[in-house]
Amino acid sequence: MKNNYSSRLLEEAIDEFSKLPGIGKKSALRLVLYLLKQDRKEVEQFGNTILRIKKEIIQCEKCHNISDTRLCPICSDPYRDQQLVCVVESIRDVISIENTQQYHGLYHVLGGIISPMDGIGPSDLTIHSLEERVRQEDIKEIILALSTTMEGDTTNFYIYKKLHQYPVKITTLARGVAIGDDLEYADEVTLGRSILNRTRFEDTFHTNQ
Amino acid sequence: MKNNYSSRLLEEAIDEFSKLPGIGKKSALRLVLYLLKQDRKEVEQFGNTILRIKKEIIQCEKCHNISDTRLCPICSDPYRDQQLVCVVESIRDVISIENTQQYHGLYHVLGGIISPMDGIGPSDLTIHSLEERVRQEDIKEIILALSTTMEGDTTNFYIYKKLHQYPVKITTLARGVAIGDDLEYADEVTLGRSILNRTRFEDTFHTNQ
Repeated sequence: MKNNYSSRLLEEAIDEFSKLPGIGKKSALRLVLYLLKQDRKEVEQFGNTILRIKKEIIQCEKCHNISDTRLCPICSDPYRDQQLVCVVESIRDVISIENTQQYHGLYHVLGGIISPMDGIGPSDLTIHSLEERVRQEDIKEIILALSTTMEGDTTNFYIYKKLHQYPVKITTLARGVAIGDDLEYADEVTLGRSILNRTRFEDTFHTNQ
Repeated sequence: MKNNYSSRLLEEAIDEFSKLPGIGKKSALRLVLYLLKQDRKEVEQFGNTILRIKKEIIQCEKCHNISDTRLCPICSDPYRDQQLVCVVESIRDVISIENTQQYHGLYHVLGGIISPMDGIGPSDLTIHSLEERVRQEDIKEIILALSTTMEGDTTNFYIYKKLHQYPVKITTLARGVAIGDDLEYADEVTLGRSILNRTRFEDTFHTNQ
């Protein structure tokens, strides 16, 4: 359906907004009309912030997390455990883990996982840079925190093969029935694994804060 | 919950996006991360379009629709019926009516409806400018196309009181059971009105295109 907007620029703005994920033409129209109603100063600030994110947000040169500075605030925090590195797929995972407030080590953001179907091989990820970190820094433990998909397992295994020659402990996230979940609805693989890897009851005390 | 983003600018961008209607912090994060993945050129175009909408989109000085030029493309279209003016609440209504492709007159955008609860009085709307148009232009018919709410009815009546002294026909949208709707589910007021204002069957032929 052709829309007849009385402003060419309105149409352009709607097109731009509807390129964003999850935003269709109708939502885009709503957003643009909302912006048109706001103060010019606020809309300018919004536009300028968008212009700045691509110019000023960079990758931390150590962990590849996004950052405003060469070293991200996590890598440069002296109170964090520099000997513990958690390997994640994306920035979003860093944010999720940070929100748990349970982790006080550093990160390494792979920038994806190995996925031949999507044409993503090991060289597209920051695995080489991870190996360099293990070689040069005094890292005691690497925690693999990738998704439990076939691609995640492949990537885990690839990283393990690269790193097991170094004197570093390689661990992975505990898998099991989610807290608050009904046993009845847990899938068999998860439930099976959670029985095999059962933990001492006393050890669960500190996690139920 | 405090979020720990490793980039101050990322946080700012998320704040800006989550000011938009219907976009929460999580969606905002998703949108910003999406933009970070795009080409710099595309993100710049997006940011610049936002900066431009507030600078370049203006109100048509005749009908108060949004426009890139002093007179909007609808008002300046010689093929449209200049003697027919449809009064609507907002730009969004103009777009809806244009999309029906059934209307070939001009518009008059009120910029809201009279709503004492929201502190909107007649002087906040473009009613005076509508009266000027009726006085100066050769308008034969004014179609009131406001919502059928109490505020809409109040506004209709206010406009009617202002305009009925002029030699102009004042009409309102047909109200009735929506096409495709089950009679059973139509509300009583609508159904009652649609019986009172029944139309000749022959007159319905051309609307079922």
